[in-house]
Amino acid sequence: MKTLRDIGENGLLRGILPLLPQRADTIVGPGDDCAVVRVPGSADDWLFTTDPVIERRHFLPGTPARLVGRKAIARAVSDIAAMGGTPLWILVDLVAPSSTPLSRIRGLYDGMAAAAKKWNLGILGGDTAEGDTLELHITGVGRIPRGTAVLRSGARASDLVYVTGALGAAYLPGCRHHLLFEPRLEAGQFLASKKFATSMMDLSDGLAADLPRLLDASKRGVRLDAAVLPLSSAARKTQHPLHHALCDGEDFELLFTIAPRNRARFESAWKKEFPSLPATRIGEILAPPAKRILQLPDGTSVPLRPGGYQHFLSHKGK
Amino acid sequence: MKTLRDIGENGLLRGILPLLPQRADTIVGPGDDCAVVRVPGSADDWLFTTDPVIERRHFLPGTPARLVGRKAIARAVSDIAAMGGTPLWILVDLVAPSSTPLSRIRGLYDGMAAAAKKWNLGILGGDTAEGDTLELHITGVGRIPRGTAVLRSGARASDLVYVTGALGAAYLPGCRHHLLFEPRLEAGQFLASKKFATSMMDLSDGLAADLPRLLDASKRGVRLDAAVLPLSSAARKTQHPLHHALCDGEDFELLFTIAPRNRARFESAWKKEFPSLPATRIGEILAPPAKRILQLPDGTSVPLRPGGYQHFLSHKGK
Repeated sequence: MKTLRDIGENGLLRGILPLLPQRADTIVGPGDDCAVVRVPGSADDWLFTTDPVIERRHFLPGTPARLVGRKAIARAVSDIAAMGGTPLWILVDLVAPSSTPLSRIRGLYDGMAAAAKKWNLGILGGDTAEGDTLELHITGVGRIPRGTAVLRSGARASDLVYVTGALGAAYLPGCRHHLLFEPRLEAGQFLASKKFATSMMDLSDGLAADLPRLLDASKRGVRLDAAVLPLSSAARKTQHPLHHALCDGEDFELLFTIAPRNRARFESAWKKEFPSLPATRIGEILAPPAKRILQLPDGTSVPLRPGGYQHFLSHKGK
Repeated sequence: MKTLRDIGENGLLRGILPLLPQRADTIVGPGDDCAVVRVPGSADDWLFTTDPVIERRHFLPGTPARLVGRKAIARAVSDIAAMGGTPLWILVDLVAPSSTPLSRIRGLYDGMAAAAKKWNLGILGGDTAEGDTLELHITGVGRIPRGTAVLRSGARASDLVYVTGALGAAYLPGCRHHLLFEPRLEAGQFLASKKFATSMMDLSDGLAADLPRLLDASKRGVRLDAAVLPLSSAARKTQHPLHHALCDGEDFELLFTIAPRNRARFESAWKKEFPSLPATRIGEILAPPAKRILQLPDGTSVPLRPGGYQHFLSHKGK
């Protein structure tokens, strides 16, 4: 009998997504960072995203509850940032064993409330249920001026590939980036409103897992230049910084593409707008969808393998 | 150390809800069947609800997966019906052990897709994650003409209390009502659009648990007439039909109130519109919030005790 372990999250999604009925008012259905729907007569499109945050998967029993709550909200904000939108409202399903200390639950909600205030979000409620594992399920709702959401599917041949910030080791001992990351909200809004980005997504499962998703959506290939990947200081202290930059999840940086004719204008506008946040050019989109090349620092090239984290595969992908 | 078991779901909500930040565009925040938000310039308000559906809590390992999927969607539809709105879009978080057979996952999504088609909903996506228990977390989005959502908080003294359909025993052996119930969508829309209902909610945890929530929101009391409660045929076959009608969860009927001056007009319009769905008058709203009386069939009166299902209390409430 075949199980989820045999096909992994990507195989599951390939099987499920075609089943899901869509309405005519849906601009972007399943498969992007957010769904996008259009309302007749409205100047805005609506963005929807959901994010599970599960003990022992997304945080550990010893992780301070306030930081778990913060992370749960920040993940939804990051998804909306990756479309270029503005997050507005949050709903939360809490699942918890009845033996959970009240102080821990209070910490989760304190963390969510503080994060919501920081990003000017309303928490509209949600539901609570008893279960065996502590979990938060976050729904994020946002909006964006009609027709301006940046999708994963917009990359064209010769577009330049960029990433914000630095990559890798969000999970390594001493590194709490996966809890304390700053969703690139202003950066995403800048890239969308100035119409610089032709495609965009946030990095949640690692560049080597996420970039292929953008390429699949755009039906394009890539040449990725390993020598210029921006490495986090935590990754640089390890023996395999490149591996961490490619395969570690939860960077929550933005990955996006820029048309080559806009390169100079984009790079100068970016530096002016975000003087302390680097946007590094890390490669180039290629026309053939199957041509996905990782150019190593020694000049040799290898196929870019989809690594990173994939649910249900027990890290087989790594 | 105090845990969730010590305070139950109601205690948890009392502690959490005041923490949650709200935006000025929120008409109804946490605590009703749906949250309601208002968008400048729009003729519609927006409705949001979330519902967890968890193995061994909301369904059993042997429950056909298609019916679990159907139920998950129907619960969200029922919440939107309870405001008088029209459901439009669904998002789904799936949590599953990696050992889950693919056929079971496929069944869940087949059931959700069929239910979505039945109610003309788009399934916009969501997320998937590995976890120890099979769970669906559903977000439902709907809309309703601006300012017409029926809230739990609108009941006034002397209003008459009604319930649709029949109550009790949704869970008893041989009764699959909790899987196959029909959300009262047209009924809810009728009650809202004709401005008949002064308050409304759906019955998910049992009349004795849910009615006090409506009373708390409205700051009112009630006299409930046990002799006229509409009993389901399954409940009537048991030794304690009244107990089942009051305390069993997952009826998913509508509980609502009508101003006494509208009684005749309402009852006649209802019979014309819904000839095969009874709406039974089961009591009267009283002004003093603490006066909550259950009048028994023998003529004696007892205090209406909040029974029904409450998460985290291990059915202590029953």
